[in-house]
Amino acid sequence: TLAAPAIAQSLPKITWRCASSFPKSLDTIYGGAEVLSKYLKEATDGNFVIQPFAAGEIVPGLQAADAAAAGTVELCHTVAYYYWGKDPTWALGAAVPFALNARGMNAWQYHLGGIDLLNEFFNKQGLQVYPGGNTGVQMGGWFRKEIKTVEDLKGIKMRVGGFAGKVLEKLGVVPQQIAGGDIYPSLEKGTIDAAEWVGPYDDEKLGFQKVAPFYYYPGWWEGGPTVSFMVNKAKWDSLPPAYQSLFRTAAQATDADMLQKYDSLNPAAIKRLVASGAQLRPFSPEIMSACFEAANGVYGEMEATNPEFKKIWDSIKAFRNEHFLYAQVAEYSFDTFMMIQQRNGKL
Amino acid sequence: TLAAPAIAQSLPKITWRCASSFPKSLDTIYGGAEVLSKYLKEATDGNFVIQPFAAGEIVPGLQAADAAAAGTVELCHTVAYYYWGKDPTWALGAAVPFALNARGMNAWQYHLGGIDLLNEFFNKQGLQVYPGGNTGVQMGGWFRKEIKTVEDLKGIKMRVGGFAGKVLEKLGVVPQQIAGGDIYPSLEKGTIDAAEWVGPYDDEKLGFQKVAPFYYYPGWWEGGPTVSFMVNKAKWDSLPPAYQSLFRTAAQATDADMLQKYDSLNPAAIKRLVASGAQLRPFSPEIMSACFEAANGVYGEMEATNPEFKKIWDSIKAFRNEHFLYAQVAEYSFDTFMMIQQRNGKL
Repeated sequence: TLAAPAIAQSLPKITWRCASSFPKSLDTIYGGAEVLSKYLKEATDGNFVIQPFAAGEIVPGLQAADAAAAGTVELCHTVAYYYWGKDPTWALGAAVPFALNARGMNAWQYHLGGIDLLNEFFNKQGLQVYPGGNTGVQMGGWFRKEIKTVEDLKGIKMRVGGFAGKVLEKLGVVPQQIAGGDIYPSLEKGTIDAAEWVGPYDDEKLGFQKVAPFYYYPGWWEGGPTVSFMVNKAKWDSLPPAYQSLFRTAAQATDADMLQKYDSLNPAAIKRLVASGAQLRPFSPEIMSACFEAANGVYGEMEATNPEFKKIWDSIKAFRNEHFLYAQVAEYSFDTFMMIQQRNGKL
Repeated sequence: TLAAPAIAQSLPKITWRCASSFPKSLDTIYGGAEVLSKYLKEATDGNFVIQPFAAGEIVPGLQAADAAAAGTVELCHTVAYYYWGKDPTWALGAAVPFALNARGMNAWQYHLGGIDLLNEFFNKQGLQVYPGGNTGVQMGGWFRKEIKTVEDLKGIKMRVGGFAGKVLEKLGVVPQQIAGGDIYPSLEKGTIDAAEWVGPYDDEKLGFQKVAPFYYYPGWWEGGPTVSFMVNKAKWDSLPPAYQSLFRTAAQATDADMLQKYDSLNPAAIKRLVASGAQLRPFSPEIMSACFEAANGVYGEMEATNPEFKKIWDSIKAFRNEHFLYAQVAEYSFDTFMMIQQRNGKL
């Protein structure tokens, strides 16, 4: 209604703590919680305050969602696939192998029922979840040696997060869970053979090119991973409707802002990485096809055994087919032409 | 500051009129003004009200920016290239031929100084301007006959908006300015030979496939056109800081939302169009190259004569080169692989 309510109802003072899964050094992805905080604070004259805390300040980064569900914090900023061990359905809120790219994932979430479908599941976990960032297609990671065939993958010890490890295992890779700060020494010593992190701008900070120079692409397990704001469900329900709407608007803006920031920073970073020794390599068609088949095998198992996974994955799959059909027309032909001009030195 | 101001300052009642350049029938692009309106109204308990008006309700669609600059309305929702006849610098706020795609344009605007650079120019026109939507790469339009060579373009009468006409003229096309509702009868009678509109979802409403079945792509003059909110500068300056911040946040969310909506609707629309007679055709490499060279000729003239154009265009060009370099790596290789699976019926 248009009637002006009393001040206490209009802009109540609310202070929430947000546990991030990321260190402050990742200004891109950690920065998403800061952007949301700034947008909410400014729009409410300082009355709706969200305080971001880096991984480890309140809870470890990989327990952020548990802390929000338990009410230890009111919300967290995290990636849903970190929790796939609880139930692989979690991963569908972020990214699974060979799924949608960033634009596809956003279209599905905002306009094809994705947000509601995900919240049917997340509400049962005590959480209300909204997109709060995207990195774009990630890189495939850093390898100490070249990987040319599926055979070369066998026995490779690779630091890889989330659901992708389950697919890579089928090809003989030995997935390792290693925190960001420990990856470099592990690669240097040869305790591991490879590691994926994010993309050029974030990877550059860790200096992997010095110890594992072969930089593979694409990160087929993260075509457009969503970073999420996960709010404790009871806290969400207690929020005045105006603040709920403002939160959704600010989260949608934050979601866009993170991708915009990555897109502004990655191009210069890839050039610096190559100048300092990174050797870019595409995964071979043979490897890509084998990974795709392995992923489909994993999906088949889950569809057969997990109805919640199947319901959401069926919705993503239906759109995936249409999305990568239409993307072949105007978008791909424009981009391809522009890339050819770029290669020919005409831009 | 965190001190709570008095209610009159916190959520002042403000009602603004927004002149859209679009008819209500375009729920995608006209809908952007409705989305902004909803976000602002809900976040302020109904106190910050923006009333959208369709093209023609207050002023004709192509005079929306003039009405906002003059203060006839407080703001408009329009495409900056409509006004390139005043000064081609306007077009850089929307799209120019062979420039950035949607992700590139957003990265440049939000994180590489684009918004500020554009407002240096737009403030002199009495306007404060923010992105408020994007359509993605548009289609190249509907042709009554196939166009295979540059020679085939000579003498073609084509309905085409904005700056692109100036480039097409160099190749012998005769650009025509025709309002949306008049395009179909003009094509049917043969008064014109071709017409570009937007993309599959919007084009479908006008039924062009019945009278001009050859549907070309890509719309190289609109790789990622920004739809803009243009606010009267004095009105913008009078807005309380909290409302200015909220407006920017809601506009950034709206900007993302429009592209998400297009991306959710275009895939199904292209399938229906093809089923009802549209014949998809890519512009030939010969035509694309000739258009690219013609565009570069036009840019050369403008760089030499228009310092404001040159300053902004130099900034876009510098990023365009980096953007289409990095896009070749992870994004393109992931999308290409997924499109191949789509074509092979594996998605």
